[in-house]
Amino acid sequence: MKKVDINCDMGESFGTYQIGQDEEILDYVTSANIACGFHAGDPSIMRKTVQLAIEKNTGIGVHPGLPDLAGFGRRFIDITPQEAYDMVVYQIGALQSFVQAEGGSLQHVKPHGALYNRASKQKDLAEAIAEAVYKVDPALILFGLAGSELVKAGRKTGLITASEVFADRTYQSDGSLTSRREPDALITDQEQAVNQVIKMVKEKKVHTLQNEEIGIEADTICIHGDGAHALEFANYINSALKESGIEAAKISNVLND
Amino acid sequence: MKKVDINCDMGESFGTYQIGQDEEILDYVTSANIACGFHAGDPSIMRKTVQLAIEKNTGIGVHPGLPDLAGFGRRFIDITPQEAYDMVVYQIGALQSFVQAEGGSLQHVKPHGALYNRASKQKDLAEAIAEAVYKVDPALILFGLAGSELVKAGRKTGLITASEVFADRTYQSDGSLTSRREPDALITDQEQAVNQVIKMVKEKKVHTLQNEEIGIEADTICIHGDGAHALEFANYINSALKESGIEAAKISNVLND
Amino acid sequence: MKKVDINCDMGESFGTYQIGQDEEILDYVTSANIACGFHAGDPSIMRKTVQLAIEKNTGIGVHPGLPDLAGFGRRFIDITPQEAYDMVVYQIGALQSFVQAEGGSLQHVKPHGALYNRASKQKDLAEAIAEAVYKVDPALILFGLAGSELVKAGRKTGLITASEVFADRTYQSDGSLTSRREPDALITDQEQAVNQVIKMVKEKKVHTLQNEEIGIEADTICIHGDGAHALEFANYINSALKESGIEAAKISNVLND
Amino acid sequence: MKKVDINCDMGESFGTYQIGQDEEILDYVTSANIACGFHAGDPSIMRKTVQLAIEKNTGIGVHPGLPDLAGFGRRFIDITPQEAYDMVVYQIGALQSFVQAEGGSLQHVKPHGALYNRASKQKDLAEAIAEAVYKVDPALILFGLAGSELVKAGRKTGLITASEVFADRTYQSDGSLTSRREPDALITDQEQAVNQVIKMVKEKKVHTLQNEEIGIEADTICIHGDGAHALEFANYINSALKESGIEAAKISNVLND
Repeated sequence: MKKVDINCDMGESFGTYQIGQDEEILDYVTSANIACGFHAGDPSIMRKTVQLAIEKNTGIGVHPGLPDLAGFGRRFIDITPQEAYDMVVYQIGALQSFVQAEGGSLQHVKPHGALYNRASKQKDLAEAIAEAVYKVDPALILFGLAGSELVKAGRKTGLITASEVFADRTYQSDGSLTSRREPDALITDQEQAVNQVIKMVKEKKVHTLQNEEIGIEADTICIHGDGAHALEFANYINSALKESGIEAAKISNVLND
Repeated sequence: MKKVDINCDMGESFGTYQIGQDEEILDYVTSANIACGFHAGDPSIMRKTVQLAIEKNTGIGVHPGLPDLAGFGRRFIDITPQEAYDMVVYQIGALQSFVQAEGGSLQHVKPHGALYNRASKQKDLAEAIAEAVYKVDPALILFGLAGSELVKAGRKTGLITASEVFADRTYQSDGSLTSRREPDALITDQEQAVNQVIKMVKEKKVHTLQNEEIGIEADTICIHGDGAHALEFANYINSALKESGIEAAKISNVLND
Repeated sequence: MKKVDINCDMGESFGTYQIGQDEEILDYVTSANIACGFHAGDPSIMRKTVQLAIEKNTGIGVHPGLPDLAGFGRRFIDITPQEAYDMVVYQIGALQSFVQAEGGSLQHVKPHGALYNRASKQKDLAEAIAEAVYKVDPALILFGLAGSELVKAGRKTGLITASEVFADRTYQSDGSLTSRREPDALITDQEQAVNQVIKMVKEKKVHTLQNEEIGIEADTICIHGDGAHALEFANYINSALKESGIEAAKISNVLND
Repeated sequence: MKKVDINCDMGESFGTYQIGQDEEILDYVTSANIACGFHAGDPSIMRKTVQLAIEKNTGIGVHPGLPDLAGFGRRFIDITPQEAYDMVVYQIGALQSFVQAEGGSLQHVKPHGALYNRASKQKDLAEAIAEAVYKVDPALILFGLAGSELVKAGRKTGLITASEVFADRTYQSDGSLTSRREPDALITDQEQAVNQVIKMVKEKKVHTLQNEEIGIEADTICIHGDGAHALEFANYINSALKESGIEAAKISNVLND
């Protein structure tokens, strides 16, 4: 049976402010990317989210972001690779500390938002992030966009990497995601989204907006934890994968498969 | 030969803003309390300070503070013990991560400013901080004001504790520091300051403002890294201790003595 | 016909984070207290909230808070009166600027959360806040807890003040609110809450938890904009007041009555 | 006698952190650009700086920056024009409030760092900033790089603008500053720097790195308030201008000349 990891951003509430339905969504994902207080999250939310993830036996990941709560880490800040390195080391440690205190273990690191997007394309930034992960703990798995500079940097550095694909985004001929500014960027039909994923997992191929089929690695699927239909879609994609003979499994099981 | 640790706050610069003469002062201290980005410091400063401390073979300590850069962690924020626990876990991890990346090891935790002062007196806050340290790493040494609730909480939790004394502050009959709002709070004469320290280390006694002698534990002496005469005093106290037959040594050597 | 102002906190969302139902609640209140980016709110939220309030012809108030987004301004920070003065001047200006840009006018200032509570009791803090308001614009009306140090400081400084009462909180013999830590602090029965308000407005009296009747000024009633039943209660209190012959009116009309 | 304004960034300290020699430098400049708490400065520093500027009769300007204290506003954050508008409105108000409280008046607005640089080239960002200034107070003078999109946007919006030149930076054929990443970006020789300024003011021309002479408007000269030689250079440029028959004067006198 084919296996794939399903990951979701978690712990993005802040103080009084609530976002997402973490507890419910955890039933449908195998990896949790937990915010670390830079783009979202705070120490108390981090503790609670780590406790939840341990309880539900979900793989725990660091989700480092840019220091921009007002922009939710989605606005790129023109930082140097060295600054990116420092921010990632800091955030890995902050989360790791809660994981240690709760008796769990860290599984992976997935950069957030504008840091993730920029690291997909900018080589020196990608390498700085990979180095940060490697120097803190070389056993951590680095999540990056399939085919991206981040995945390449991770491998070059000596890290195990996981290639990430998106159910609800369309792809370009070069393997990049269609920009959200383009009209056809999103796949809103749930069945179409899931079929894209099944094809990526089973055939290692994706149909692009330019009407070609290109090769793609699909170790982990990103789903979203907020929005009106988040839970419903999480449930749907789980069932649909199972019916297609694909098992949702922790990334370590997927990669060792 | 009697031994005592000398500790100093470090890494309190932030972005473009510079405070202290960390590199120079490190030659005179045996333990560095490194700020973690809440009351001072940022990820880049933390990395540099950790590198310096490793290079100079100084004991590395976490210096967690309240999240108040504008107030430098000196204004108490009315947090719950649980919030204190979460903030301390977070900050230990953030610093530990840089120490891991640089191949060093963490030695101690000393809360900063208003968090330190309040934890000297407020039992539940002190216990929350001690528990945070213990759960992340029970081998970490907890620094607290000699005779304080923080030291008591540390021992009760199962931590090794270090009793801290101040060279340049006067003491009250109950062993507390004279409030800075009082006229006689500070000892500005260097010789008098050093003599107070020597008495505390050798005789385990301090002469109070009320003209009594009370017992006091003195495992580590706090000196200040900023101010016009910081370096000069650091140099002076080192020499004066040595002349009195007291060796400045890392806290682990002091406690095992 | 008796008149009373109804005020509500507004504009407390932040970036991606949403709180409250500002647009709907504005139909039921006569004064809006708009957050200024310290305890909640951001520049974009402030602009939109000012636009809404102008559109709905609601009195616009500055709602300055402590710089603590994580604590939503509810944790007191041990600031000096001078720091409080500076923070209040800053926040009045920030909001005033949006009001100027949109062609509206500022009506009042009501401190938020821990700043409000502390200024009810601490005279020098109350006077610093009153002075800040007066020096920026002496025509601004200062909202404070009925009988509090803040109202007294406002009057002494030369400001017009509005005495605020709460529908859903119980009162002590000295006119203070019962602390939320006490079991009987909240009035959860809507009818009882409204009856308390009607008595305060019509008879200038309130029945305390100690079973006495004490005098109270009631120029403006505070209602809450978040929570499950916020809109429903806002609607209910409006209707109930009207049926009792009390008109909800802007504070300037109430005070000139 | 020719006139020119000399402006300098001010009030960039933060909490305990000190930057610049504001009090001394104010003796040599005619316009002060005061930070507003986003990239630097805090409410208490703003009050003190406004008081100083009023005392020394210096033109008071708003110096709005990006919300990035750690980066001192020098790292561009990928904000929308609407977000820029909101941030500028907010910061103008915050400073204006202190000016009102102290009985002074606002003279100008000069964006800081990455916001200034980007607004020199990006038209929609420049227009958003100009609109923000205009809507809050159309009498405010907008400072921008000579020949930049910001100056054009200001004029188009209906604002009075001041064209800014730099003494210590070299120019390109298109009138832009040589990027700091290029080897010849800075003019370190004081005499050469001042001669460039004198030529710009008297002849409205600058000699470019490409060895051409191009036209340039020079209403105001930017000097820096930090660095080892800041005071010395401020003194030197003042004297040198006077000897060349150029009077340092407030921007309003320069523009009305």
